[in-house]
Amino acid sequence: MIKKKTTIKDIANVLNISPAAVSKALHNDSRISEKTKKAVRQVAKNLNYQPNHLASALRSGKSNLVGVIVPRTNSNFFSSVIQNIEEVLNKEGYNIIITQSNESYKKECDSIDTLLYTQVDGIIASMANETVDLSHYEKVKAKGIPLILFDRGENDLNVDYIGIDDYNSSHIIVEHLVSQGCKRIAHIGGYKHTRIYNNRIRGYIDALKKYNLPLDDELLLEGNLTIKDGKAKMLQLLNLKNRPDAVYVAGDYAALGALRVLKEKNIKIPQEIALVGFSNEPFTSMVTPTISSIEQHSEEIGKQAAYVFLEHAKKDTVSQTLSKRILDVELIVRDSSDRNKK
Amino acid sequence: MIKKKTTIKDIANVLNISPAAVSKALHNDSRISEKTKKAVRQVAKNLNYQPNHLASALRSGKSNLVGVIVPRTNSNFFSSVIQNIEEVLNKEGYNIIITQSNESYKKECDSIDTLLYTQVDGIIASMANETVDLSHYEKVKAKGIPLILFDRGENDLNVDYIGIDDYNSSHIIVEHLVSQGCKRIAHIGGYKHTRIYNNRIRGYIDALKKYNLPLDDELLLEGNLTIKDGKAKMLQLLNLKNRPDAVYVAGDYAALGALRVLKEKNIKIPQEIALVGFSNEPFTSMVTPTISSIEQHSEEIGKQAAYVFLEHAKKDTVSQTLSKRILDVELIVRDSSDRNKK
Repeated sequence: MIKKKTTIKDIANVLNISPAAVSKALHNDSRISEKTKKAVRQVAKNLNYQPNHLASALRSGKSNLVGVIVPRTNSNFFSSVIQNIEEVLNKEGYNIIITQSNESYKKECDSIDTLLYTQVDGIIASMANETVDLSHYEKVKAKGIPLILFDRGENDLNVDYIGIDDYNSSHIIVEHLVSQGCKRIAHIGGYKHTRIYNNRIRGYIDALKKYNLPLDDELLLEGNLTIKDGKAKMLQLLNLKNRPDAVYVAGDYAALGALRVLKEKNIKIPQEIALVGFSNEPFTSMVTPTISSIEQHSEEIGKQAAYVFLEHAKKDTVSQTLSKRILDVELIVRDSSDRNKK
Repeated sequence: MIKKKTTIKDIANVLNISPAAVSKALHNDSRISEKTKKAVRQVAKNLNYQPNHLASALRSGKSNLVGVIVPRTNSNFFSSVIQNIEEVLNKEGYNIIITQSNESYKKECDSIDTLLYTQVDGIIASMANETVDLSHYEKVKAKGIPLILFDRGENDLNVDYIGIDDYNSSHIIVEHLVSQGCKRIAHIGGYKHTRIYNNRIRGYIDALKKYNLPLDDELLLEGNLTIKDGKAKMLQLLNLKNRPDAVYVAGDYAALGALRVLKEKNIKIPQEIALVGFSNEPFTSMVTPTISSIEQHSEEIGKQAAYVFLEHAKKDTVSQTLSKRILDVELIVRDSSDRNKK
């Protein structure tokens, strides 16, 4: 049996007053007498009336909800960012709702619509691989809702951004590989239209120049960085006449795919080919050989994103001063690129 | 600069009619003339009026949103279930929003409130480890909103449930370990108050009886099944005077913790101690040795949960006939328990 919810109308009927008067009484409107207010409250209690919070959000414009959009939840990086956003915001009385784009532009647009529909007080997002057009984010800005982008989100939108120094990450990786004696370094990168991958590619190219290493077009590949993509790109590199002696992969899942191909082909890691991944997913320390990777400080990214939102929320308006916070990274050297290990 | 949103009042002002008339016109009310409707639509278009979907959900009682609550998103099992729920529901015009309880009862209650607040058309949930009291789920039922529980959700609530045969899973595991020559089998289980873990424990006990194996209290441990918990419980088992020769762990993360302890202590796996985990997380096939585990068919659980929701949604009422779907499992035998491998 489905119980029918008590409405303002039910209370009005009992007291023989108008629903508008009940609503005013419940909102402590000065136009309603104290006597009526008391009666309304008593009937509301008796009938187990529950105010509709959604209607209340429509009135007050505040839902205490923050929406988080990630490309996918099954990545340690993204779930760790979510975790840390949540910890900071929960303490301040906000709950978060999560949507995932599954790397699809259309789903990212749907996510924005869903979150706007639920009247979130702010949106914290990282973009899908497919996303090039940014008009759905313009829509959020136009509505005056704080929008904070992280990781895959650096852009020309003029909104807050929290990320890492991707350009410099590539320098750190190339420098490490050079120190291991590598002379022909390939890069399995993400799509250039995504700013973070573009920055990693630029960093890779500039670092090769710095160390006077050859920059061959055939050594620089772009893809979606899945395990499958990593396998395909590694096979492509192995089929080159002049193979690389090191591969820097812009994502750990693709690095795992590359590792599997190297093992299948019985190529010695790191002696024949050294391998470095990106984002320090937990599995990088579980596989054999363990994979060197860049620690992106997901905890800090999540916390900073939440802090930036809270700053906006406190001001009750979207600040004109935008935050762009770029965090330092750290290379975790493991067996896949450590040629000096006994 | 923040653009002000066009409201029904703005349209009313332009046309010099009442806001109520504009609202009626926009909802194609027969009391409004076609001429007025046309004028209202034209002005709405000119002013870039966007109907408030939330207000519209309040009226129609349909949001086309389904809420999904999981204990955590950083588990392959849960993110795969989410993925499959989403695929099925997206095709039918529903979007999903995700909240995580982080294994906390309080956060699970907050998640329910948040989802009810956003006027979801249904809730698909798996419970936190902490959850014992179920009154927050009673609240969902009382509101007549379809509630489908999966995995950690079998209970006496009388709502739909999709899960696997946990009791029989234990039989399959014990049978396998017996076939490997194991004679003293320990179980690192979840908390007994959670039905699925209770079923695994009961299955373990009954399977030991079936094979006339010793059932020592010291071999049966309960915990929260984190990596840390798995380590602690494995150490506890190693400190026994009479050590087990096999350990069946009710979760892969705890199995990973147990594996690490066994490797640190240089115990031969599976010769000295054989190890089996539960839920076939991807890392079980990445670590050395690879970990045997139970495949729970997360894809199928997600799809079935979505189908059950759609059945309710089509009937536009919560059906009295509840679905309880129990799926078969499969044991994936890997190096950690395969004593016959050369």
